[in-house]
Amino acid sequence: MNPSEWFSEISDELWPGQCFSVKIKKVLHEERSKFQDIKVFESESHGTVLVLDGIIQCTERDEFAYQEMISFLPLCCHPNPKKVLIVGGGDGGVAREVVKHPLVEEVHQVEIDDRVVELSKKYLPFMACGFESPKLKLTIGDGFEYMKQREGEFDVIITDSSDPIGPAASLFQESYFGLAKRALKPNGIICSQGGTFWIDQKHVRETLDHCRKHFPVVGYGVANVPSYPSGQIGFFIASTNDQTKLSEPATTFTDKEVDDMKLRYYTTEIHRTAFTLPRYAAKYLYDEK
Amino acid sequence: MNPSEWFSEISDELWPGQCFSVKIKKVLHEERSKFQDIKVFESESHGTVLVLDGIIQCTERDEFAYQEMISFLPLCCHPNPKKVLIVGGGDGGVAREVVKHPLVEEVHQVEIDDRVVELSKKYLPFMACGFESPKLKLTIGDGFEYMKQREGEFDVIITDSSDPIGPAASLFQESYFGLAKRALKPNGIICSQGGTFWIDQKHVRETLDHCRKHFPVVGYGVANVPSYPSGQIGFFIASTNDQTKLSEPATTFTDKEVDDMKLRYYTTEIHRTAFTLPRYAAKYLYDEK
Repeated sequence: MNPSEWFSEISDELWPGQCFSVKIKKVLHEERSKFQDIKVFESESHGTVLVLDGIIQCTERDEFAYQEMISFLPLCCHPNPKKVLIVGGGDGGVAREVVKHPLVEEVHQVEIDDRVVELSKKYLPFMACGFESPKLKLTIGDGFEYMKQREGEFDVIITDSSDPIGPAASLFQESYFGLAKRALKPNGIICSQGGTFWIDQKHVRETLDHCRKHFPVVGYGVANVPSYPSGQIGFFIASTNDQTKLSEPATTFTDKEVDDMKLRYYTTEIHRTAFTLPRYAAKYLYDEK
Repeated sequence: MNPSEWFSEISDELWPGQCFSVKIKKVLHEERSKFQDIKVFESESHGTVLVLDGIIQCTERDEFAYQEMISFLPLCCHPNPKKVLIVGGGDGGVAREVVKHPLVEEVHQVEIDDRVVELSKKYLPFMACGFESPKLKLTIGDGFEYMKQREGEFDVIITDSSDPIGPAASLFQESYFGLAKRALKPNGIICSQGGTFWIDQKHVRETLDHCRKHFPVVGYGVANVPSYPSGQIGFFIASTNDQTKLSEPATTFTDKEVDDMKLRYYTTEIHRTAFTLPRYAAKYLYDEK
């Protein structure tokens, strides 16, 4: 293997004509699991990198931004997020963040690909440490099927999926949001990985519209994650309680509390600003059609 | 020329180990000017792209985000920005935005490389249209030298430079901020292109510290621009008035006013949120050292 070769994230389907590349120091592992191609490599500049089906899932350098935001945005929108479901998140990063929240008592996680979990434990221990919490119960299985059997169980459901082609496709459909709503307790909150309007605003709008059919309050929050396409990723966040104001967190933290939880991105003020979008995006995503 | 080749933005000095690439449809122009290598190409996905010394300066697809924010953040921090100086900005994009502001009466611009201006007029007319305003007076020359001869002239000075290696190096030094301060009227505001803390927080902190030696109020605002490294760019903003609160604009706009000015990114609410940084960056850039 040539040590100076680059990993290039090319997708004609998801982001034609553009590409982010990271220089590879050493390939640590490659395999085809039952569900997807998995690659783990050490990079020159971004630490360890996990790639599924040719798409970067996380880099050691900036994964904290994503994991903190997909976890703390919904958790802090809920006044008492005792029982949480994580769908996907096989690397353990979301679990690592969710169990930090002082009100969370019980976390259930369902991940379809046990190979991602095993490889993360071996090569990404800084994320897989999330699996070690006594609050967490991990199930290997299909999140869609898992939710079909749950009703009124969870305060918060977080869907940490890959992009909407491949094994995660069903997690972006309208029926998924219907199932998620049914699995929630009253006043429940959901949060799903939501791509970026910079590349595919039509997909973001359509998924928001799926959400709107089931939830009275729906929003789109954003975080900056340099190693994702466009350097930004969004989250679909919805509440069954029509009084929820997503940009005003129910739980707030002082800087000291933020530091004690070892948060590096999320703060209460970051939460308040996460739903403010550029004018063109706000118009496209929120205006009546 | 192979029409399916990629332009790859590699810089071992500025962002080692990572690289953003755009697929080239057609190279429109290439030359070595007196100051730098200039390349203009039509891309598959990002419209026309301007490259100086191998670094993307703007793409037709997302340049509006940068131009609007580097212009409207400082203009709206100032209660009455009548007379504005633009240093750099040879593509015309900043001029295009600055003259939109309803209180701006007179804009002076000094750009070092007339070839950028000429090529922009030919290949990037959507930006070079900024040069057509009767409010604008363009001078070809060195911004550093130009400012040495000005004292107490401008309400706002905007420095739209390339990165701190090459012809723009002097625009990031402490002496530059001293000159800028002297060229301002009382209660003046400056704003300079400021890189990103995701890649080089040490440079950002050092430049903020240069600023702090001359201005009582100094801040760092950010905008998302997908085609820049990390997908985000920051701005050094400073005021000579110690009562200025950068995150609370002196001039506010309704959505209708924003739309009438054809702004696609900037809104009053975006301005208010632009100075909120991830916890790790806020600590590094603002904590006492």
